[in-house]
Amino acid sequence: MAALVSYSVAKKNNDKAPVNSPTQVIGGHGNNSYSNNSSYQRLAANFVTNKIEDTIMMKLDVESLSSASNIIRLADFGCGVGSNTINAMQDLLEIVKKKYMSQRPTSQVPEFQLIFNDQFTNDFNSLFTCLPQEKEYFVAGVPGSFHEQVLPKSSLHLGHCSYSLHWLSKLPTELEDEHSPAWNKGRIHYTSAPQEVLNAYATRFAEDLNYFLNARAQEIVSGGMMVIIGSSIPDGMPYSQVANGLMYNCMGSILMDMVKTGSISEADVDAFNLPIYACPPGEFTEGVERNGMFTVEVIELMNPAPWLKGPIDIPVFVKHVRAAMEGMFSKHFSREAIDELFNQLVPKLSEISGQMESCYRDGLQLFAILKRK
Amino acid sequence: MAALVSYSVAKKNNDKAPVNSPTQVIGGHGNNSYSNNSSYQRLAANFVTNKIEDTIMMKLDVESLSSASNIIRLADFGCGVGSNTINAMQDLLEIVKKKYMSQRPTSQVPEFQLIFNDQFTNDFNSLFTCLPQEKEYFVAGVPGSFHEQVLPKSSLHLGHCSYSLHWLSKLPTELEDEHSPAWNKGRIHYTSAPQEVLNAYATRFAEDLNYFLNARAQEIVSGGMMVIIGSSIPDGMPYSQVANGLMYNCMGSILMDMVKTGSISEADVDAFNLPIYACPPGEFTEGVERNGMFTVEVIELMNPAPWLKGPIDIPVFVKHVRAAMEGMFSKHFSREAIDELFNQLVPKLSEISGQMESCYRDGLQLFAILKRK
Repeated sequence: MAALVSYSVAKKNNDKAPVNSPTQVIGGHGNNSYSNNSSYQRLAANFVTNKIEDTIMMKLDVESLSSASNIIRLADFGCGVGSNTINAMQDLLEIVKKKYMSQRPTSQVPEFQLIFNDQFTNDFNSLFTCLPQEKEYFVAGVPGSFHEQVLPKSSLHLGHCSYSLHWLSKLPTELEDEHSPAWNKGRIHYTSAPQEVLNAYATRFAEDLNYFLNARAQEIVSGGMMVIIGSSIPDGMPYSQVANGLMYNCMGSILMDMVKTGSISEADVDAFNLPIYACPPGEFTEGVERNGMFTVEVIELMNPAPWLKGPIDIPVFVKHVRAAMEGMFSKHFSREAIDELFNQLVPKLSEISGQMESCYRDGLQLFAILKRK
Repeated sequence: MAALVSYSVAKKNNDKAPVNSPTQVIGGHGNNSYSNNSSYQRLAANFVTNKIEDTIMMKLDVESLSSASNIIRLADFGCGVGSNTINAMQDLLEIVKKKYMSQRPTSQVPEFQLIFNDQFTNDFNSLFTCLPQEKEYFVAGVPGSFHEQVLPKSSLHLGHCSYSLHWLSKLPTELEDEHSPAWNKGRIHYTSAPQEVLNAYATRFAEDLNYFLNARAQEIVSGGMMVIIGSSIPDGMPYSQVANGLMYNCMGSILMDMVKTGSISEADVDAFNLPIYACPPGEFTEGVERNGMFTVEVIELMNPAPWLKGPIDIPVFVKHVRAAMEGMFSKHFSREAIDELFNQLVPKLSEISGQMESCYRDGLQLFAILKRK
């Protein structure tokens, strides 16, 4: 099940929303909050820690990180809320420290600063209250879109970005243009859509990735590294062959049913598209090489959480999906419409759970480590 | 009036409260919020900007700030919420930039990062939403008590601390000890109290100041500076000779009246003391010299806002006081008791407004600029 969720339940939407818009994930610590409904993400994160350690131990040269003041700064871009980001960053800190001490055994342990970045609308208050009271590092919260530079030049040594890059900064305008071949009428995603729709999404993603890499290239010192984890799919595979694609189709069809009963208007559905793109590894590598500021040290497709097999627990799954995606829907639909959508999603997905389980489920998580040239 | 409020209405309480305790000032943007009831503080802040500029232009050597990566970091310690901290830091940035360009006219303008520090319980979400969307600096929120190191070593160039240092990190225990000569029975502050009570407050403040300076000494580069603005009083003057002292006495007497009517218990009043100490300049200088890490470049008593004279608008005044102090009371008293206290405060202060206005009102604001050795 986690194999399905860990790439479908994204952490937050990094679009450039107005400052006062609601955050995409549900903040605080309530029943529907992201922080209480993100255990799948934590499991997936644990699994990659060993892979990060292998690469850092082999490929990071701590000499290149040393500053006069002996500080190592680590940043999580698109951190969201809850303990997942804190745990991931603490793990990364331990790995870097281990490498540092192995390479410079007689040196003083450097000071570490963990930087948590997300949109201005992120619930930093909740995030800060999750931090342990006793800790061996300094902390900073940095608000701002990660598609722009948010830290001073050459001030960062290691970056981390987990399940955030697949959120598009904005939707391609042609999806809503009835005169365009990419008009996405009656659907809410590129799953099962014409090639033009997929191309519009892919082009937007490539631009976002370039903005992201340019910003990080300013911030990260030469020799510094960037860990990227996120939604992916094998090159050339249609999104309708993975379970999330089936779910997006299912959401679209529930919304169209709601149009028929008059709960929402057809124009509302036509104007709504999920700003989510799962970039295949080939495209990702091309994007990094075209940008030119980083080398790709590692890139592979992983199983998000291969030890979690068996039947899908649909109600739990939907709760996770809702915690991550509700903010996105709430910009377009009423509270009642969203309740109806998620209430209907449980039985609808239960009907096709067999089909979802038999989908392609391996290798849907991109794992990449880049090094600043 | 502002002369009274600007030192009485402190921004927030930097005591080492448990992580989940309420913040001391009222967050958000509501009717009773600090951000909507802190206009006096802003006026006072504007007034000092010129004085800061004079000192920075004369005494700051930007050569000592230069780092390899050309970043200048400015931090506000005890920032609170609202636009006052943002405006103060933007003003400081402009001053430093002006000095930089005057001293190094052919250099590239450095990058600036504004760092906002306050307790873990501060409303950073509100603070971040007050930031301008277009800005020429980077931003970071740093949670943690400013009595401890919160930033990496030698990473900061200018510090700022306005109306925060007078909040004690904790109350002297002897205030609640009936066997101590410093037992503060029936009062809520050292105003009109025995010398032993004043001494207990002064000792606690001196220790806090030392912790604060030790922490900043770690963070600030040699040659970096620290602006300190806050509550003060001429050396040797009893606190009962200033209007805030009269107000604290008034609050104490209202609470004792409430004991008589049974609204609260006498033990509750005995156990409650305001953790506020207005340090005279002589004591402050002694504390800095004893600490030994900074030189005192400027120290003086100022009029917080001398252009604001005339009668006190008691209801507005009490609203400001409540926005700043309610959090402190709410740890000890019920909502109803606090409402009763502040409701009674308006007529009680109105009765003595003449006496308050005729009090010593000049030179109650400490203005100091320290330089890291």
